[in-house]
Amino acid sequence: MDCKFEVKSLGRSTFKSPIILGYDKGDGIYNYIMESERVLYDKSLESFTKNRDEGTMPLSFEKAGPREFIFFKPTKTKAAIVTCGGLCPGLNNVIRSIVMELYYRYDVKNIIGFQYGFEGLISSYKHPYIELYPENVDDIHLHGGSILGSSRGDQSINEMVDTLEKNNINILFCIGGDGTLRAANLIYEEIKKRKLKIAIAGIPKTIDNDINFIEKSFGFETAFSKASNIIGNAHNEAKGYYNGIMIIKLMGRDSGFIAAHATLSMQEVNFIFIPEMGAFELEGENGFLNALKKRIELKHHALIVVAEGAGQHFFKNQIHEKDASGNIKPNDIGIFLKEKIASYFEDQKISVSLKYIDPSYIIRSATAIANDSKFCSQLAQNAVHGIMAGKTGFVVGIWSDIFTYLPISAAIADRKKIDLESELWWNVMEATGQPLSFKN
Amino acid sequence: MDCKFEVKSLGRSTFKSPIILGYDKGDGIYNYIMESERVLYDKSLESFTKNRDEGTMPLSFEKAGPREFIFFKPTKTKAAIVTCGGLCPGLNNVIRSIVMELYYRYDVKNIIGFQYGFEGLISSYKHPYIELYPENVDDIHLHGGSILGSSRGDQSINEMVDTLEKNNINILFCIGGDGTLRAANLIYEEIKKRKLKIAIAGIPKTIDNDINFIEKSFGFETAFSKASNIIGNAHNEAKGYYNGIMIIKLMGRDSGFIAAHATLSMQEVNFIFIPEMGAFELEGENGFLNALKKRIELKHHALIVVAEGAGQHFFKNQIHEKDASGNIKPNDIGIFLKEKIASYFEDQKISVSLKYIDPSYIIRSATAIANDSKFCSQLAQNAVHGIMAGKTGFVVGIWSDIFTYLPISAAIADRKKIDLESELWWNVMEATGQPLSFKN
Amino acid sequence: MDCKFEVKSLGRSTFKSPIILGYDKGDGIYNYIMESERVLYDKSLESFTKNRDEGTMPLSFEKAGPREFIFFKPTKTKAAIVTCGGLCPGLNNVIRSIVMELYYRYDVKNIIGFQYGFEGLISSYKHPYIELYPENVDDIHLHGGSILGSSRGDQSINEMVDTLEKNNINILFCIGGDGTLRAANLIYEEIKKRKLKIAIAGIPKTIDNDINFIEKSFGFETAFSKASNIIGNAHNEAKGYYNGIMIIKLMGRDSGFIAAHATLSMQEVNFIFIPEMGAFELEGENGFLNALKKRIELKHHALIVVAEGAGQHFFKNQIHEKDASGNIKPNDIGIFLKEKIASYFEDQKISVSLKYIDPSYIIRSATAIANDSKFCSQLAQNAVHGIMAGKTGFVVGIWSDIFTYLPISAAIADRKKIDLESELWWNVMEATGQPLSFKN
Amino acid sequence: MDCKFEVKSLGRSTFKSPIILGYDKGDGIYNYIMESERVLYDKSLESFTKNRDEGTMPLSFEKAGPREFIFFKPTKTKAAIVTCGGLCPGLNNVIRSIVMELYYRYDVKNIIGFQYGFEGLISSYKHPYIELYPENVDDIHLHGGSILGSSRGDQSINEMVDTLEKNNINILFCIGGDGTLRAANLIYEEIKKRKLKIAIAGIPKTIDNDINFIEKSFGFETAFSKASNIIGNAHNEAKGYYNGIMIIKLMGRDSGFIAAHATLSMQEVNFIFIPEMGAFELEGENGFLNALKKRIELKHHALIVVAEGAGQHFFKNQIHEKDASGNIKPNDIGIFLKEKIASYFEDQKISVSLKYIDPSYIIRSATAIANDSKFCSQLAQNAVHGIMAGKTGFVVGIWSDIFTYLPISAAIADRKKIDLESELWWNVMEATGQPLSFKN
Repeated sequence: MDCKFEVKSLGRSTFKSPIILGYDKGDGIYNYIMESERVLYDKSLESFTKNRDEGTMPLSFEKAGPREFIFFKPTKTKAAIVTCGGLCPGLNNVIRSIVMELYYRYDVKNIIGFQYGFEGLISSYKHPYIELYPENVDDIHLHGGSILGSSRGDQSINEMVDTLEKNNINILFCIGGDGTLRAANLIYEEIKKRKLKIAIAGIPKTIDNDINFIEKSFGFETAFSKASNIIGNAHNEAKGYYNGIMIIKLMGRDSGFIAAHATLSMQEVNFIFIPEMGAFELEGENGFLNALKKRIELKHHALIVVAEGAGQHFFKNQIHEKDASGNIKPNDIGIFLKEKIASYFEDQKISVSLKYIDPSYIIRSATAIANDSKFCSQLAQNAVHGIMAGKTGFVVGIWSDIFTYLPISAAIADRKKIDLESELWWNVMEATGQPLSFKN
Repeated sequence: MDCKFEVKSLGRSTFKSPIILGYDKGDGIYNYIMESERVLYDKSLESFTKNRDEGTMPLSFEKAGPREFIFFKPTKTKAAIVTCGGLCPGLNNVIRSIVMELYYRYDVKNIIGFQYGFEGLISSYKHPYIELYPENVDDIHLHGGSILGSSRGDQSINEMVDTLEKNNINILFCIGGDGTLRAANLIYEEIKKRKLKIAIAGIPKTIDNDINFIEKSFGFETAFSKASNIIGNAHNEAKGYYNGIMIIKLMGRDSGFIAAHATLSMQEVNFIFIPEMGAFELEGENGFLNALKKRIELKHHALIVVAEGAGQHFFKNQIHEKDASGNIKPNDIGIFLKEKIASYFEDQKISVSLKYIDPSYIIRSATAIANDSKFCSQLAQNAVHGIMAGKTGFVVGIWSDIFTYLPISAAIADRKKIDLESELWWNVMEATGQPLSFKN
Repeated sequence: MDCKFEVKSLGRSTFKSPIILGYDKGDGIYNYIMESERVLYDKSLESFTKNRDEGTMPLSFEKAGPREFIFFKPTKTKAAIVTCGGLCPGLNNVIRSIVMELYYRYDVKNIIGFQYGFEGLISSYKHPYIELYPENVDDIHLHGGSILGSSRGDQSINEMVDTLEKNNINILFCIGGDGTLRAANLIYEEIKKRKLKIAIAGIPKTIDNDINFIEKSFGFETAFSKASNIIGNAHNEAKGYYNGIMIIKLMGRDSGFIAAHATLSMQEVNFIFIPEMGAFELEGENGFLNALKKRIELKHHALIVVAEGAGQHFFKNQIHEKDASGNIKPNDIGIFLKEKIASYFEDQKISVSLKYIDPSYIIRSATAIANDSKFCSQLAQNAVHGIMAGKTGFVVGIWSDIFTYLPISAAIADRKKIDLESELWWNVMEATGQPLSFKN
Repeated sequence: MDCKFEVKSLGRSTFKSPIILGYDKGDGIYNYIMESERVLYDKSLESFTKNRDEGTMPLSFEKAGPREFIFFKPTKTKAAIVTCGGLCPGLNNVIRSIVMELYYRYDVKNIIGFQYGFEGLISSYKHPYIELYPENVDDIHLHGGSILGSSRGDQSINEMVDTLEKNNINILFCIGGDGTLRAANLIYEEIKKRKLKIAIAGIPKTIDNDINFIEKSFGFETAFSKASNIIGNAHNEAKGYYNGIMIIKLMGRDSGFIAAHATLSMQEVNFIFIPEMGAFELEGENGFLNALKKRIELKHHALIVVAEGAGQHFFKNQIHEKDASGNIKPNDIGIFLKEKIASYFEDQKISVSLKYIDPSYIIRSATAIANDSKFCSQLAQNAVHGIMAGKTGFVVGIWSDIFTYLPISAAIADRKKIDLESELWWNVMEATGQPLSFKN
């Protein structure tokens, strides 16, 4: 079996799970998941044939779910939760469901939340932790944001592990993106070095939907749904003026999933730019500005969606800022495009009504929509099943609609991006009708 | 290869597709789909091993998408669309995307819509057809309902095929549920018998999400999202009164997907009943009423969700009505439960505030939410790709997030239901906390 | 001055208000309201001339707002809140704003909420009261329902006043409709008889908007806004079928304000029935059914909105049920109309698709929309200003967009109804295009 | 009678209105409005007494509504509509209702819409006009924007009147703000000079709600409702980070109505700045920055709402840009505050998480909410009643909830602003808890 995707465990699970399930198919009761149950990475028939013929094993992921035996004795287990990085719809749903699952299903009553991300594990910040129980998380899923607060930025791994030890934490749920998962992995490594019996589970949070080997991340659908509505309004604005041009900057530092999905769902976008497209040209016969001019002359309005990480080649000789998490902050491609478009049409002596919208902070703080709410609660439940079984250094994910566990290291090895040869991108191109590339 | 899932075609495709795609992986352009590309039905590693070891071929579905060669010459092709059965969010999105794809991508300009379902193909109803083109479908995706109208009920297959012949229709899109697909299949058979070159594509429409071998049907997510909000409000109503009890009847004649997903997304439901549960008991120590009483005594409010097809065993000696489509109309389990609960608590001398909601007609006529809107447009595009390539008697579906084609016959062979041993149902049970069965 | 509208007070206000305001116009600070400030009932110039010429005083209402001197010493004041009757959007907003205003502006820290309406003041029900303070009401305005719960039904006035005495309550806010205000007035009378220094303020809650001398009641706009969306969806449903007919029953036992406003805001309704219309006929040349038939023959779809209190003349020989509050429960005019329409078209041999929706419980439990949220907080603040100044037996209202105080007795003397000769009703008739009456 | 508010007319109305109404109170049918019916400006009892005692006539506005006799012969009347300036929710609702009222109630079938604001009346722009009839405006009220498009900027009055003459326009509806109404008034003056029988009606459109003598303008409630939701999300964002500070810039060049109402409806704002506040100070003991610091130290998050026209004194030595309409474009107070706050906390060595949102273009292009939708249709109907009766140079407004007509000159004489001594502003101050002024 491919060991890249093998989830590590703290040791043998010896306690019978308090969750009573069936053992056999056909008794009408859900069964415990066996360690051997796995989901194929490649779902094509071709992959089946190839592996069969070549005698290779296909890549696969461990299936998530409740195990018959667990590692931690519930009444002696102390759990902690931390939310890190940018806000994302569904954070409170995940917190709530972790607490409910631990409390009611596993009988773990000792649960705390560290405040303001990893800062909460560093004593010098003096952020007190919060005790979590059903009553104080009961209706938090109806609100955006995170009741625990968040923060960006690296903290000392050693100090954080000290805090876990000092507080007798047995299990820690880290809800966060790429940077958070990297830190969670270092925490996991340090715990291993210290030979502690503390388990670490990551719940990948990326509004951009760009975690490797994970089909869909929570909050993403809410994000592109909100963006879709905003595109609808922007379309009204563009059509409302002669030669009306709207630029909407959406989230997506390294990948354009939000931009692409919002474009597909609203069907009014004429040009889309995402990081995966790489360098494109503004000037020249086949450049973007000429294409925009043709559109304006034909229809007298245009809608442009740009992911924040697109077009960074325009800034390559400039100094890149980093945010507190160490992520490179993209130069503002939205404002850049606005200025280029404005001066282009001025040169062309074509009067346009040009406007720019950046709705990011309205989107990421929204309440999770129904499908995300459901997804968050299932992610949280599965994270609890895995960690109670003693799994550690893992994240919970989803693949082919089946919940999975995979090593944090696999999830952070690369970033998921839109394949420009995929059906998704082709459908986006069909929806916008834009040329496949802007190159002379 | 498993022939159950082989899609039939009208003949050899000889025209080069007007859609220009790549041929090779790596050129940055989406590639034509080859007839041999298929998606595995069973995504588990176990299935791989079993098939490999036993020398069997796994079940698989044909992958949807644009083909290099098409059967119909676009400029000579006349297309028709019909929407049948109950309303479902996304109907207009599907109509719009079929028209846009035919018109702009395949250059098929001759498109009509039959009005009011299959009635529109029967001359005696005198429903004139509507010509469809980009201008008159441009913003219909922003509205619920169907601009073509719909109807229930069987119509003469022969007469409908006559209408297709008389109007020189080459391709027909039937958007509808189980009954519609059955009729579409009969139309397909009759066309074959008459040796006509007319292709039939089904786009499965079931708000209940219960089409066989199709992971998700359009409108379903919108439906459970609206239901989720209504459950939230009903929860306010239940908590607003001492011993407040709310019953919400949701759609689901044969399957409980809407009820289950709405329950998971709102997390406030205490009892759920779906058709798949089969018979349950009201009376006795382990009956539902006793469980409800305990809940009321403990928390003083309760929320009950019931799918319309649940609990039909209570009516087994009664005469079942059929609707115009010939579907058995379930007796009203919501009103039945309301009456039983009312008299039970009266007998128990416990005063309750009991209310009943049936929001179906508000839900099914709603505008599609963003994710459904995107899904509808992709379904429609793929239906067009398939039919233009000469495929017929097929439906477009989705499996493991990949669009597929499968014979109508496969889609109507059985109904998809919630497996009571699945993770989905277990998660619902965890969310409600109700006993696994109500039997003494 | 007209004494019908004179608000009574417990005695002289001797404490300086902790709210520091200006005394003079022009200093840029809001001024204390003087007892003499009043708002005219009739806003027409004609009324001015008539009163001037005849030497009469026009009717007017006392202006609400902060007074310079207050009756209750804040640190010794204990306040109580109770919510009664049916749910209504905004209840939590009112509760929250009363608590915030008392706590932060008047320094009244001792605030309790009686649970489940007037039942909470009757010891035999054993509903414990809840202490209220900023932390536990902080985000309740984001949710529908009432955190205090509600109930219908008469309770012993004596026992309730006993409870107020025993708990040393000084001020009581009764949030409720007609029945609640009648009870609040009896409580006020009993307090007067016992010579207690307890003040009673009513905050009129009627989703139907039918309180006398009060321009607009809270929750009403939210209600008709939700109804408006539902009418939009119902319109999709009606148009979706040949001869599609939708009946939507809306709230409104004695008045049709919700039905009328929702009709005006969505503009898709073809027939509306409200209680104020009195008796109308179904049969005959000028009866409703004939008008509906003409509409169906012309447009093939129709939308009918009916307020629950309309058409009660059809039931006049039947026994009327009363609800727990003693209100006469209207017979179900929606179901009655549905049956009459169904059998009429059957007789006429016209096939129709007829559906019926009753969305009341979804509407009344909704979260208040922004304008209602603002209105609730202003109502609550003004109720606090009045009661702290020692006013009692009063309700807070609004007239010509100015907040007012008036005696409970005035508010319950009659019910506000739609004047069939008003511009509002005329506009509704213009929007539906229906005949002014259905009489032969 | 006060002549400032007297509406001029083109001449004697000699045609009987096709709208059949009652003449007497009590016949159950709405009555024609008499020219003498007027609404009092000052609704206070004090004003009654003062006018009575001093023998003066109170200010009053003409009451809007259908007249018995009209000036224009419907079948010979050609109507035109134009929408100018910034987008505003409800534009399409107003257009639709004008068309419906003219077409169905007055039998005026000849209606056109000039495109892109006043540009549409200037031939050199070559914007063709659009014919308007019920079928093509039927569902436009469900969408934001304006189907006619809009533009900013002055156009030649002479040329516009030429266009009206050349096209035989009899009545023109100008939907627009302050600048538009000024131009409409000049058009009216020019028409008078030319002795033409063309009537001009203004429908005041100001999302900022700042038209003189008009209680409420359409789109305003939608605007503050959307802003209210955004404030709720921003609050999540602020609370989500330690020392989280959010700045939200809202519309309001000369007045802070949107900011004030949104603040009252969401109740989470800590500091609000509006143009009416005039100069305020940032530095010093009583400056804003110190107050913000105290808030941050106490609660660790803060929400700041700033109307775009606030704090312009900070830019007084800078050059002011003007937009195409000639309005002074305010310097960006939001970005200014963001920079000042950032550097202040940097100096103070307090780490904050500071973010800025400008949601204007998302708000103004939104679909009108139900109450605005109803209001728009009533405004439009009353505009039609007035203009058909031959009134000209007038706007339709609302006062004390009664629709009114007043001369355009009165509406543009001044701008409505928030009175800092009003209850509204005091309630805002109570909601934010901020100091009444920031001055040392």
